[in-house]
Amino acid sequence: MKTLSTSTVTEALADKSINMEITSPTLLLDKEKCLANIKFMADKAKRHNLKFRPHFKTHASAEVGSWFRDFGVTAITVSSVKMAQYFAENGWNDITIAFPVNPLEINAINELAGKIELNLITESKKMLQFLGEHLKTPVGVYLEIDTGYGRTGIPSDNERRIESHLEYFVFYKDSIKFKGFISHAGNTYKAKTRHGIYNIHFESMLKLKRLKSVFKPIWPELEISIGDTPSCSICDDFSGVDEIRPGNFVFYDITQLRLGSCTVDQIALRMVCPVVSKHRPKNNIFIHGGAVHFSRDYIINIDGKPLYGRIIRREGNKRLLLNEMNYLNELTQEHGQMKVSPQEYNKFKIGDLVEIFPVHACLTVHAMGWYLTTEGQVIKTMPNI
Amino acid sequence: MKTLSTSTVTEALADKSINMEITSPTLLLDKEKCLANIKFMADKAKRHNLKFRPHFKTHASAEVGSWFRDFGVTAITVSSVKMAQYFAENGWNDITIAFPVNPLEINAINELAGKIELNLITESKKMLQFLGEHLKTPVGVYLEIDTGYGRTGIPSDNERRIESHLEYFVFYKDSIKFKGFISHAGNTYKAKTRHGIYNIHFESMLKLKRLKSVFKPIWPELEISIGDTPSCSICDDFSGVDEIRPGNFVFYDITQLRLGSCTVDQIALRMVCPVVSKHRPKNNIFIHGGAVHFSRDYIINIDGKPLYGRIIRREGNKRLLLNEMNYLNELTQEHGQMKVSPQEYNKFKIGDLVEIFPVHACLTVHAMGWYLTTEGQVIKTMPNI
Repeated sequence: MKTLSTSTVTEALADKSINMEITSPTLLLDKEKCLANIKFMADKAKRHNLKFRPHFKTHASAEVGSWFRDFGVTAITVSSVKMAQYFAENGWNDITIAFPVNPLEINAINELAGKIELNLITESKKMLQFLGEHLKTPVGVYLEIDTGYGRTGIPSDNERRIESHLEYFVFYKDSIKFKGFISHAGNTYKAKTRHGIYNIHFESMLKLKRLKSVFKPIWPELEISIGDTPSCSICDDFSGVDEIRPGNFVFYDITQLRLGSCTVDQIALRMVCPVVSKHRPKNNIFIHGGAVHFSRDYIINIDGKPLYGRIIRREGNKRLLLNEMNYLNELTQEHGQMKVSPQEYNKFKIGDLVEIFPVHACLTVHAMGWYLTTEGQVIKTMPNI
Repeated sequence: MKTLSTSTVTEALADKSINMEITSPTLLLDKEKCLANIKFMADKAKRHNLKFRPHFKTHASAEVGSWFRDFGVTAITVSSVKMAQYFAENGWNDITIAFPVNPLEINAINELAGKIELNLITESKKMLQFLGEHLKTPVGVYLEIDTGYGRTGIPSDNERRIESHLEYFVFYKDSIKFKGFISHAGNTYKAKTRHGIYNIHFESMLKLKRLKSVFKPIWPELEISIGDTPSCSICDDFSGVDEIRPGNFVFYDITQLRLGSCTVDQIALRMVCPVVSKHRPKNNIFIHGGAVHFSRDYIINIDGKPLYGRIIRREGNKRLLLNEMNYLNELTQEHGQMKVSPQEYNKFKIGDLVEIFPVHACLTVHAMGWYLTTEGQVIKTMPNI
């Protein structure tokens, strides 16, 4: 399928005609690709004997969540107490909130813990004490470990500090159950190559395995839970790991494509936008599709400038992914500006629908608040309030 | 009020205690400041004999929109057909859609034009012809002029091209009424100083005045409409201008503060976020408040790095705005990372509520989808779908 007639095209995509009339920016979800992505990751987890606890923050929807059940998923990850409440209301009863415990939300946590199997994460003794004293129903708690990302978590090499946290689980054993070590190797997103992702994953895994070997004799039930989509997508060594929690893989996006975590054919989301203006001097094409649709997230393009999305042009029955010299290069609130080659410029006209692969699926889904499947189903994300 | 005891504080803010219990990221609107901002701009318009047609994309809410009525506002600007539909349903019957006409939305445009006074903007002969042929009720149409921003619009110095567009208004006079020239000097956002804003505004105004003098003899009713918040906030010469359409001024934000378009006391929005983690090695404080709350928009801080928000710390009854070396310096989906001085580090503890001035009010309001007034009123923005 690679290398096509015109030099500005890198790839032809499978055609999937849109049967509904689209007149304004619309985020389309290819359900078939999405199901294939879920199957891919569920199969991989099974093959490696890993518990699959997908992160639901990417799709943020009860409907897409329900698709996971057909692949045997019964436990999920979320990023806030509100998201846990939403999915609990939608029938999920085994949820890990992968965000540091916020003591102000103790009432909501207690309410959830009374209804479902709830796991929390922390890296703070004060919070372990707080939970020990304020929980009304026992919950599982993971210690968050930093294996190199440098956001939150106890540095993995600080075994003494980790040990001092574990004492709290003994003291408050009636309310907090030590689940194990949880880590998010978000540093894979900074990797320059697939090889870089392997390295980070391997190093991160080694650190967690070391902790497991040190603490397993005393805590035989402890588990190792890791999470990022790049590692989970491309790596094939998960020795010592018990659970994976990837999220973005359900849709993938241009960030993942750039990293090598997915192929073009796995990207399940695209924004369909009307062309509204053309400016010859700089070969700019303007679309209705801006920061309120895509979010303002970007990656640095091969020309060193911000790239907000990659362009798919429809030509007859074909859908052609243009190369990276044709791209969405600026966003204001509602305007999107595409920079294209002079040849490509002539192929767009006002009133055309152009398709854009988003840079960051999670934030684009959030910015839109809804999406449309290629089967014509409207999917709403969890309410903001 | 300037210069306080500690070197990390730049300003003390009027105290406005929050009477409601906040446990998760909450966007607070100081209604008093917001009303003062509306009054400030409405008074200015009156003083300069300008029609005040505020852009409603910033607050995106019927409720806040209704506050403008007390200041005599009857005509508004919006950035999409959907937004026009929303405000039309909420009683506004004189609306300019300040976004290039999208021919795919002609049915919705016709429906709106049948109900309200509708103005559109274009820079394309094809679209003038399209409107001439497809409109069922007459609408007002502005020609969009580019005075230097370089996004959409006909370059102001191309009088011949402008003239050739005007012929369409003669030919299709039964359906499209020429309203005048509309411009958005978005280049003021790139100004380095207030003086830079004056310069851009003055140059832009000169260009539009020139067009007015050339075309007014033939089109005596033509009007000049300009729009950006920086110019409208600080400039005091509007000679030749008939209408202003600022939007952001209703709330203001850190971008406007940096530009000098507003004072700290005019910023009406702040995000209240719980502190969830502290990391001593880099003096990082983590809050619940990420890209899904603030959006990913940033400005470049004085240290050359992205700044996603400025920090207000509460101390007793005082609210202190920390200087720019203490700031929100990284956002992921739900995590916000603040970088603070060692002295400030010790003043925050897990479970505290910290307040953040957002970088870009429009996108923050959109990302949240709702906000809370200091009077305790929940305000929802227009629905996404």
